[in-house]
Amino acid sequence: MSESRADPLAAGMIRTVLHDGRRDEVAVEEPLEIRVDGVPLVVTMRTPGHDEELALGFLYGEALIDEPRRAGPADDFAANTVEVDGPLTRDPGERRFYTTSSCGVCGKGALEEVAVNAPPAGPGPRVDRARLATLPDRLRQPTFERTGGLHATGLFTATGELLIAREDVGRHNAMDKVIGRALLDQLLPLSTNILCVSGRLSFELVQKAAVAGAPILVGVGAPSSLAIQLAADRDMTLGGFARHGTVNIYTGAERVRS
Amino acid sequence: MSESRADPLAAGMIRTVLHDGRRDEVAVEEPLEIRVDGVPLVVTMRTPGHDEELALGFLYGEALIDEPRRAGPADDFAANTVEVDGPLTRDPGERRFYTTSSCGVCGKGALEEVAVNAPPAGPGPRVDRARLATLPDRLRQPTFERTGGLHATGLFTATGELLIAREDVGRHNAMDKVIGRALLDQLLPLSTNILCVSGRLSFELVQKAAVAGAPILVGVGAPSSLAIQLAADRDMTLGGFARHGTVNIYTGAERVRS
Repeated sequence: MSESRADPLAAGMIRTVLHDGRRDEVAVEEPLEIRVDGVPLVVTMRTPGHDEELALGFLYGEALIDEPRRAGPADDFAANTVEVDGPLTRDPGERRFYTTSSCGVCGKGALEEVAVNAPPAGPGPRVDRARLATLPDRLRQPTFERTGGLHATGLFTATGELLIAREDVGRHNAMDKVIGRALLDQLLPLSTNILCVSGRLSFELVQKAAVAGAPILVGVGAPSSLAIQLAADRDMTLGGFARHGTVNIYTGAERVRS
Repeated sequence: MSESRADPLAAGMIRTVLHDGRRDEVAVEEPLEIRVDGVPLVVTMRTPGHDEELALGFLYGEALIDEPRRAGPADDFAANTVEVDGPLTRDPGERRFYTTSSCGVCGKGALEEVAVNAPPAGPGPRVDRARLATLPDRLRQPTFERTGGLHATGLFTATGELLIAREDVGRHNAMDKVIGRALLDQLLPLSTNILCVSGRLSFELVQKAAVAGAPILVGVGAPSSLAIQLAADRDMTLGGFARHGTVNIYTGAERVRS
């Protein structure tokens, strides 16, 4: 947690720019190459910091690893590169998504694919609706406040205590960093926790939360249709538009006390 | 343009859901498979509608096509699939991004890669700062207004007339749809136009605008560091935080009259 409180400028998350004759701060975006046993796997655009967590959380969400791995700078110290110890639990080249010849490409295929990787959410905690609505306010965003340019994800206890918070220009990266940290801290599956995101709720974010075993996901923004379908399919509680003291509950209302 | 004014519910962009005992509308998100000459190339999560434009705009932005192609339903009528006529102008399997063994992975590599695909922006129009600041208000978002769940991109003339507007759950998709439409309408390169997006300005969005030859890109949200670097490198004008009658100009201020 101490890392989250570090000065974001010092951590390389913020850069000073000049515009209109004055100094201002913007969120840093740089590519990151993730290598496994020295072999480049993927390049993602991200905000520097917590790169090992990002790599591990990404690999976990893709069902490429299922336990903590050593991760750190590449052997050749290449910039913006993180190295993860293999082996992977499946062939990353195999096609995973949505393609079945009978139905073409559909949301149902996507849901079935995720179902393979994610056990259904357990019963999880019961939480007060009013408390859920306050989580975004508790999700500290020191770098967003200075740049307006970052998404955040927070991992909370059922009583609303913030355990892990991460920011990134990519909302999926912020979620990956939180899940990577949780993986390292042996907190997975997140069966008693709440995940909260600063933006909209896409299929991809619900998918990552589902694979991490989170029973409750709340966001400040709107959910998409497929986000709602997936949350329903995985027995998750999905809350959207968590702001101004209220929250819409789209699925899993049995976990929410009014 | 008439398509933009169609009822979004009828066009499959909006779905009605029940939450908290009431009906509400959410933005539809579904996977789309893009095939070229029958061979699946990529699957993207998108809001249905203007799928052919999305496919063509995506391929153009990746430098996989450089002129309009026939695009439409797949021969087997598979759902959520769009078929584009080949051949592609380069091998899509070849690695494009950021990897040079000498420098590892860095923003400079990303900039150089884009530079190959995008000619520097031409002189372009000169525009009033006040007019730039009003573009987001002119970017109609009929579906966002009903769901809060969609990003938008608009193509404008230098005098602020809206030519093309598209919405999508993915902000890169909204940009791809606009560029795909512009490609079909023989409007590329967009050397006299302004692109305006409803959200933040990432490297990816500037990259797409650069490849389309747009001299000016404005967004409602914050730019990232690499978005600014790329815009500067391509001689583009980049404006951010366009709201409440003002706009920050990060690069290319010579095109902006105060």
